[in-house]
Parts: sequence; structure tokens; C-alpha cells
Amino acid sequence: MTLKCDLQYGKGDASYKLTRVGVRNVRKPVVIRREGLGSQLNNTLSCSIDIFVDLPAEQKGSHMSRNVEVLNEVVQESMVNPVTALEDFAADICRRLLVHHEYAQNAEVHISAEYYKPNKTPQGRDTFEIYTLLAGATIVRGGPLRKTIGVRAVGMTACPCAQQTVTEMLEYSGDMPVMSHNQRNVCTLEVEMPEDVGIEAEDLIDLVEASFSTPTFELLKRPDEGQVVINAHRNTKFVEDMVRGVLERFVAKYADLPDDVVVDVKSNSEESIHKHDAYAERYATLGELRMENQ
Amino acid sequence: MTLKCDLQYGKGDASYKLTRVGVRNVRKPVVIRREGLGSQLNNTLSCSIDIFVDLPAEQKGSHMSRNVEVLNEVVQESMVNPVTALEDFAADICRRLLVHHEYAQNAEVHISAEYYKPNKTPQGRDTFEIYTLLAGATIVRGGPLRKTIGVRAVGMTACPCAQQTVTEMLEYSGDMPVMSHNQRNVCTLEVEMPEDVGIEAEDLIDLVEASFSTPTFELLKRPDEGQVVINAHRNTKFVEDMVRGVLERFVAKYADLPDDVVVDVKSNSEESIHKHDAYAERYATLGELRMENQ
Amino acid sequence: MTLKCDLQYGKGDASYKLTRVGVRNVRKPVVIRREGLGSQLNNTLSCSIDIFVDLPAEQKGSHMSRNVEVLNEVVQESMVNPVTALEDFAADICRRLLVHHEYAQNAEVHISAEYYKPNKTPQGRDTFEIYTLLAGATIVRGGPLRKTIGVRAVGMTACPCAQQTVTEMLEYSGDMPVMSHNQRNVCTLEVEMPEDVGIEAEDLIDLVEASFSTPTFELLKRPDEGQVVINAHRNTKFVEDMVRGVLERFVAKYADLPDDVVVDVKSNSEESIHKHDAYAERYATLGELRMENQ
Amino acid sequence: MTLKCDLQYGKGDASYKLTRVGVRNVRKPVVIRREGLGSQLNNTLSCSIDIFVDLPAEQKGSHMSRNVEVLNEVVQESMVNPVTALEDFAADICRRLLVHHEYAQNAEVHISAEYYKPNKTPQGRDTFEIYTLLAGATIVRGGPLRKTIGVRAVGMTACPCAQQTVTEMLEYSGDMPVMSHNQRNVCTLEVEMPEDVGIEAEDLIDLVEASFSTPTFELLKRPDEGQVVINAHRNTKFVEDMVRGVLERFVAKYADLPDDVVVDVKSNSEESIHKHDAYAERYATLGELRMENQ
Repeated sequence: MTLKCDLQYGKGDASYKLTRVGVRNVRKPVVIRREGLGSQLNNTLSCSIDIFVDLPAEQKGSHMSRNVEVLNEVVQESMVNPVTALEDFAADICRRLLVHHEYAQNAEVHISAEYYKPNKTPQGRDTFEIYTLLAGATIVRGGPLRKTIGVRAVGMTACPCAQQTVTEMLEYSGDMPVMSHNQRNVCTLEVEMPEDVGIEAEDLIDLVEASFSTPTFELLKRPDEGQVVINAHRNTKFVEDMVRGVLERFVAKYADLPDDVVVDVKSNSEESIHKHDAYAERYATLGELRMENQ
Repeated sequence: MTLKCDLQYGKGDASYKLTRVGVRNVRKPVVIRREGLGSQLNNTLSCSIDIFVDLPAEQKGSHMSRNVEVLNEVVQESMVNPVTALEDFAADICRRLLVHHEYAQNAEVHISAEYYKPNKTPQGRDTFEIYTLLAGATIVRGGPLRKTIGVRAVGMTACPCAQQTVTEMLEYSGDMPVMSHNQRNVCTLEVEMPEDVGIEAEDLIDLVEASFSTPTFELLKRPDEGQVVINAHRNTKFVEDMVRGVLERFVAKYADLPDDVVVDVKSNSEESIHKHDAYAERYATLGELRMENQ
Repeated sequence: MTLKCDLQYGKGDASYKLTRVGVRNVRKPVVIRREGLGSQLNNTLSCSIDIFVDLPAEQKGSHMSRNVEVLNEVVQESMVNPVTALEDFAADICRRLLVHHEYAQNAEVHISAEYYKPNKTPQGRDTFEIYTLLAGATIVRGGPLRKTIGVRAVGMTACPCAQQTVTEMLEYSGDMPVMSHNQRNVCTLEVEMPEDVGIEAEDLIDLVEASFSTPTFELLKRPDEGQVVINAHRNTKFVEDMVRGVLERFVAKYADLPDDVVVDVKSNSEESIHKHDAYAERYATLGELRMENQ
Repeated sequence: MTLKCDLQYGKGDASYKLTRVGVRNVRKPVVIRREGLGSQLNNTLSCSIDIFVDLPAEQKGSHMSRNVEVLNEVVQESMVNPVTALEDFAADICRRLLVHHEYAQNAEVHISAEYYKPNKTPQGRDTFEIYTLLAGATIVRGGPLRKTIGVRAVGMTACPCAQQTVTEMLEYSGDMPVMSHNQRNVCTLEVEMPEDVGIEAEDLIDLVEASFSTPTFELLKRPDEGQVVINAHRNTKFVEDMVRGVLERFVAKYADLPDDVVVDVKSNSEESIHKHDAYAERYATLGELRMENQ
């Protein structure tokens, strides 16, 4: 029996266009090829994927199952030819969506996955730390594809202002950095770029971690714990400093990238002295950033 | 002792502008004045509030505590003069932010709060149902203020396509609507508008609930439960239909609103036949919507 | 038409007993009567309620809708006679469940609600802080009812060990407490007791807040912020210390409570130097605690 | 420099014993060896791990970093000798904890990880579905080790009662199952057992999936979607039925397991006709279950 519900094709009354229609939170294991220390730990990424296309006014419904069919194709292929970059994987899905949804003018894909990276504590001990990779792509039919790669990392910020206030209150005049409040900070850096640009997600992790008061570590024995605390208090950061630090490092590192690359940096401190969070964000093109700080 | 950490004013090296700096998830009880059945249940809304201003390149830090000072002022005032509309409360905060952050050019406020509304089941039984109110405001110094009011509601969608497929598969030719899959749908409608426009959040709830296959209810005795199920299967909806239904009702109801009102409708079905969700969204000005469907 | 689905009464094949059957996350506004400063802010609590009864082996189904009917009764009554203690409200629901589910031998109720409490910063500034109330009750038919009242509070812990390590590493010999790592700690205290015992939830909040390195505050101007940071570093606490501090204060304050009162204290530090949490818990009767530390 | 903060050993004033002290939500990639279709997709599981030991009254603090050291050891070893069962991995950690925490009398470990399993739709199409594995172990010094293996699966339940009510309301007398409400159900099955017992997690998944009205699938083309809906309506299930179905299948399948095995089954339906959930649970020894239903 061949069954085909053709309700989606119904064209009776024209209605409104829809900006995006699709599926959210589809879970897929994607086989990737990494080199070096983290290779064995990240050979399969468990991805949560959202995919959407637009819908013209005259069509009743989108073909939802085609979204998952496209996903299955690319996931199967990753088992034979492992993926090297999650944003290229997203770009591949995006192009196929326009083939399978012949009525669509736009397609977009968002992927998030947990990722482990080997690291060293200040005293040289090996650790593996966890991060979130954020990848995506958007395309307009007949136009260019834009892809996105990003990372989310957890680190520490120590407050410069409380440190200065305490120094005054305790009338301390030595050269030891005094106590402050410090806390978990979650920083997200996402970069949108033309398809031919290549950025390595691990470089973005390094760049974000260099901008915290200190990165954090799963395993810290005494001297390492002390050193992490000292490092943080010698390198206090507002959330504003954190975002600007990421921007500065990004602009310096990627001098070759074109001006139309878009950077979004978000820093959220889960304040230890408050029950609420402190937050800063910059969303800008690389061209704008270059103009601001020459 | 007068202490003043002036680090935020530091102007040493110019750096990058920041798009938004502020606090997130500040919890505040806001006293509101409602009329009718829901008045006693909503006299104090427990609000989660985000507030941000921008930061110029030459200033090191934003004055974070001023954000909460402004909040405390307006919350104290609400105890004497209860708030009548949460979006006007957001607008009030927004204006005061520009006064207290003299260096800022923009301010924005986002509020969410749980809200109870009396309702009737199909057979006339009284219930109280829960919704989320979403309110906000943005302002540019010297420019106009835009405010936002929105609602999030949970209801049911039953799938038209599975119903048609099952009808064919079972070769049923009667006039009873046959089985389909049905599930929780979470629909969000947000409206951004000029300050002088007034929209009642309860009207938005009604409009969203009318667009589900059926609204849902906390208490359903047998005949009500049966009726809800029958209603849903006589009124099957894709997520696409759900969004368009909200748009149609919105355009029809608010014929007097200006073209520059912005509408964002999102419908997310937590599919019973899948582990992932189905999703549709339209983001458009009222002017665009009026052009599309005349 | 009178419809009655009697499937729940089906007795065909005996099957297994069920430990608990019911509804979860029912949202209800409960009108309460509080005195003093917090009265206007907490006149209606938005409660999330779970209620369960057991099910004998020979009965096919529980009557789910009766659970919500019972809830509606007590919520309606709270509008006329506001509730004075959330645990007594839970106890009332529990007794009615056994009346409406004539086949059940046990009933249990769990309630959580956000709660605002006025507080003073170290320098005397007024704030309102947010907490979670946790209330419940369990009953065995023909046996005693036990009720539970609890609180969840967010505060700060500063680490004693890192402080000592840093002191050694920097060879500091002055009397100023040096830097350490500090972070958000979420502490939960729940007390299960016979029905005739009365405990005031606000007292439990005070007792938990006294056990942090320092409580935290929504609004801190400079000198207050400095003082909070200094207080924390003069009063460093492991999660273990935190739990024992709550136990000591509890045992001291409630000398009149019977030995069969059950205390559960949980302290979770969202570590600033790690991406994971540190945790400690004690679950014991008051009698056991009294024996341990005489 | 050798630094050793010995605060944890402080024995000044005796205080209270603590039930559990440790770390929560440590993220680790664990290399496992699976056979068959799912092998490539699950070669590394991203695990969230909680580990605790108790603390005697006379010891000030637990040695938190030893917990992560133990974890690092076993994770490193898994890279050379992949783990074959997550509960044996948990048991291994548990034993090592008692060695490293010489003062502890108890240790416990809880692990959760996402897991992909190949499946077939009703019409034979291949899919990969996602599940959560739950593993753990507890040990008392000098006593036996108990380990736990469990699964969490998402499927569909269709309501028998609404179906009967609708049949009556519409006065339908044919033999087609009529419409009902149906929804996502999340079912958790956990089994605690002596160390020498072996249970395969994939068997538990099968057993849970057989107890839904129907399992659900990521990809369903028309005839498959129709068949899933028909299957569900021919196999309606209360949450109570769901739990009993799992119990029956478990008791039948594991006739060889000892009476002291403990089974915990939880079924939570995210009701499509309500905003709240329906829930049933049975917690019992296998011996008790065998007595009840002979």
C-alpha cells in the first residue's frame, strides 16, 4: 500500500508565510575525526540538532520527516567518512535541506555537543575538561551559505572592585592581592563566517579560557588549588573585561579573516555575593571591531 | 567611611563598546491590580527580571548595583500604587535606567512571571489555568520607547496528517474523526509596540488558546475529558496551522494597531510519536502580515 | 448524559500493588496569611504540588481526577480562610485524599513555592531575598500523619583549605584573612515531624543563613559588598561545616522537639575552581543527633 | 614546596557524622566495548558522575580531590581496557573509594549517560533511538557491594479511559479503536542487585519499550506513522498499566535472579489534556513481587 498524506500540499486559502518550520532537539551520534590527545575521547559526539526551513504562504505544511531523513543520511555517511568540523557538517545538512524542501527559500541548522579537551593545571598535572561546541549554518536559495562555530566554557571570574574596596576597608598597604568574591562564569563565543573560512574550535576554547580570571580544573591537589586562587586574584575581571578580553584576543588572532565575520561574545557570572547573575555581551562584525580599536 | 570603588570609571586604554551589560534573573515580587475572577490569585506576581544597558568603549565598567536600585524603587512603589500592566512597569524601569546610567545610550528590560487565569471546561466546570506572562521594553536615548507584552500557554495539538493516513489504512468511511497522535504544545506570542498602544495580556491568552486543537484543563471529569478529546480530533492542527491561526486572529482583532507593531509567534509540539519536537515560527511586522493576506 | 468510565475498577486479573500513583507539578495559587514585613509580598504563593496514593493489587487504576478535585477544594477554601502554614495545608490535603480514594492505604503530598523574606545587609540596608519553601505530608490509613516543612536558600561558602594553602604559599604572616575561592552554595533543610509539632519556616531560613560563610544579598553598595566579602573570609566553611552548622543550630534551637523528628540537611557548593559541585548531607533523627553530640 | 592543608584532619571538637560527602556532576568520557550495530555510536559515553563517602564525627573534612583522582584512574584504564558494563565500572570506583578514604565506612556512586540503540519502525525502517543509562554502586566497609543498572526511555501512552468515554459519547459500535488522548511518557526502570548478578541494559530497554502503548521513533514516513498511531490505540495504557507491564515482563524474564534484587519502576505521562503529569511507581524486592503474583 502506498500512502501519501498530501495535506501538506493543500493550497486552498493562501495564508501567511512562516519564518521557520522544522524539528528541534533531534539527538544524533556524529562520528568525528580528531587528532592528538582528545581523539579517543571525542570520536563520537552526541549532538542535539535543530533544523528549519521557511514555508511559503500558499503551502499548508512543511515535510517534517524529510528533515530527519537528511540527518540520517549525513550521520550514516559520518560513520564511513568521519566529520572533521561540526560547522561543515551543519553546512552540508543546510544544502541538502534546500534540495529536499523544494519550496523553501531558506534553511538553518543549529547543533550543540559536549566536547572534552586535555588540559594542564598550573603545576602541570593532566586533566580533561568539558566544553560545549556550538555549530550551525544558514543558507538563502541562490545566495551564500554562512556557517557558525562556537564554544561555551566554564571558568572563574574574581571581582576587581570588591578587591579594591576590601583593600581600603582593611587599610592594607602590602603588595599581596587581597580577597575578593569569585565565582563560576559561563562564557560563550560564537563566530559566523563565510563558508570558505576555517576556524578551529579548540582555538576558540583557548582564547576564551585565556580571558577568565583563571580557567578551572576538575582535579586540583593543594599547590594547584592555591595557585589557581592566586592567579585569579592577580587577574581580576568584571564580566565587561571578560568580553573585551575575548574580543581583543579574537581580533589579534584572526587578522586574516574578512570584515563581514560576525562575533558574539557573552559572559555570565553566577555571582557568589548575589542570587542573580551579572552579564555582558558584544555582538558585532569584525569590521566594526577593527574600526573601534585601531 | 565613604568608600567608592572608581574602577568602573577607569578610562586608561580605550577598548570595545559592549552591546549590553547588566543583571539577569533578579527575582522580585510585583504587586499588580487585576479585576475580576483572577484578582485574588494574581495580586502579587513573582517576577524574574533581566535588565541591561550598553557601555561605551571608553568606560571600563557598568554600575551593576544601580540596576537593582532602580528595581527596588519601582517594586516599593508598586506596593503603594499597584502595577496595572507589566509592560508599562518594564517601560518605567527602562526610562529610569537611562537616568541612572548617564553614559548609556540604550536600555532594555525583560520580565517573566507566572499567571493564573480562570477558565471553563467544555462542560462548564470552573478551573484555574497557569500561563507565563512575558513583558519587556527597550529605549534608545533621545528616541522612542518600544514595549513588549507576550504570553506563553500550554495546549494540545492533534495531527491532521496521521488522522488522514489512519483513515486510509483502516479504510474507514464513516464521518467520525478517527484517532491521531496528539500532544502538549507550548505556544508563545509576543507583541512589540509603541508605548501608547495598549494590549491586554488576557486577550492574547484567549487568542492563543483558540488556536490550539483544544486548550487543556487541570480538572476534567469523564464527559469533559471525552469532549476535550473529541474537540481536538475535530480540529486537528499542524504547528504551522497553529502559528497561522494565531496570526489570523491577531490581525483580525487588532485592526487598529499601527503597521510597525512586531509579532512573534512560536509553536512547539512535544511530539507523542517522536522523542524530538516539531516547531514553527513567524516573526513579522503587522504591516507585512496585512500585505500578505488581504 | 452520565458517563462513567469504570475501567479503573476492573478487577479481572490481579496484578501488582503500586507504591504511589497520582499527579505531579499541578500549579495552584494558595492564599496565605503572613504577618510583618513580608506579608504583602507573599499573600499568594504560586505552588507546584505533587500528590499520590498507593493502589492495591486488585484495582486497575487510581482515580486521578479526584486528586485535583481535592486540591481545588482546599485552594478555594484558602481564599476565604488563608492558610497559615504550608505544611498544615499539605496535611489537610493528605487526610482528604484518604477519604476520596477509599481503596488507598497511604497518601503523600509534596509542595514547593517561592517565598520572599525581608532582610538587612551588613550595613543595614533593606533587601528582599528569595527562598524556596518545601512542605509535605504523609499518612497511613489508621496511623499517624507526619508532616514536613523545609527551606532552600542560596548563600556563599569560602574555602578554608585554599585560604590556608595560599597563606603558606605567599608566606603571609599578618592577621588579615587572605584570599580563597568562594561560590554559590545551595542549602536545603527539611524537617519531618508529628502533626502537633510547630516549626516556623522563617526560623529555618535564619538558621540556614547563619551557617553559610555569609548570606547573600540582591543589592550591595560598595561598603556592604566589601563587608560581605570580609565576613565570608573570616568565616570560611567546607560543605561539611555548613551541614554541621545547620545541625548544631537546629539541635540547640529545638530542644523541645521529640526524638523522632527527622532532619535532612543538604549543602551543594557550585565550586568556582571546578566545573563540578561539592556536596555534603546528613539525614538523621533528632534522637540520633542528640546522642552523637552531648 | 610540599603543601598540605591538614584542616580536613582537624579533630578538635567532635561534631556530627555526615551521611554522604563528595562531588556531583563530574563529567567524564568513558570508553566502552559494545557489540553489534550500536558499537560505533557508543564507543565513548559522556558520563555525569556523583560520588560520595560518609564522614565520621571526629573528622573535620572529607578529601574531595581523592574522588576525582579515583575517577581519573578508572577513566584512564578504560582507554586501554574498555568498560563492558557501566554498573561494573561504578562498582570498581566504589571499592577504590574505600581504599582512598580510609576513614569512610560507606561509598556510593551514581552515573548517567546518553546511549543510542538501533531499532526498527513497525514497517521495518532502521532508526537510532536515544536512551539514558543509569548505573551505580554502594558498599559498606566489610560488607557486600550492591550495584544498580537502569534505563530511562521515552515512549507513548494512549489513555484507555478517554477512549471508552469517547466510544460512549459518540455511540460508536464498530470494532475500530476510537480516538483518545496520547502523550510522551518517560519511564525509568532501575534494578539493584548483588555484584555477581548480570543484567544487560539493552534488555531493560526492550522490556520498557514493550510496555508503552507504543515505542516512538525519530523517523516515521506515512505508513509507519499511521501504524504507530494504530498500535497505540489498540494498546491503551494508564501509567499504572505501564508500571505493571514492566514488572510482569521483568519477573518473567529474570526468573533466575535472587529474591533480594530490588526493582524501581517509574512512569511519568506528560499529559496532552492537562498541563500537569500523571505518575505511577513501584519500588519492591523481586521476592515481594513474586509473592504478590504467583
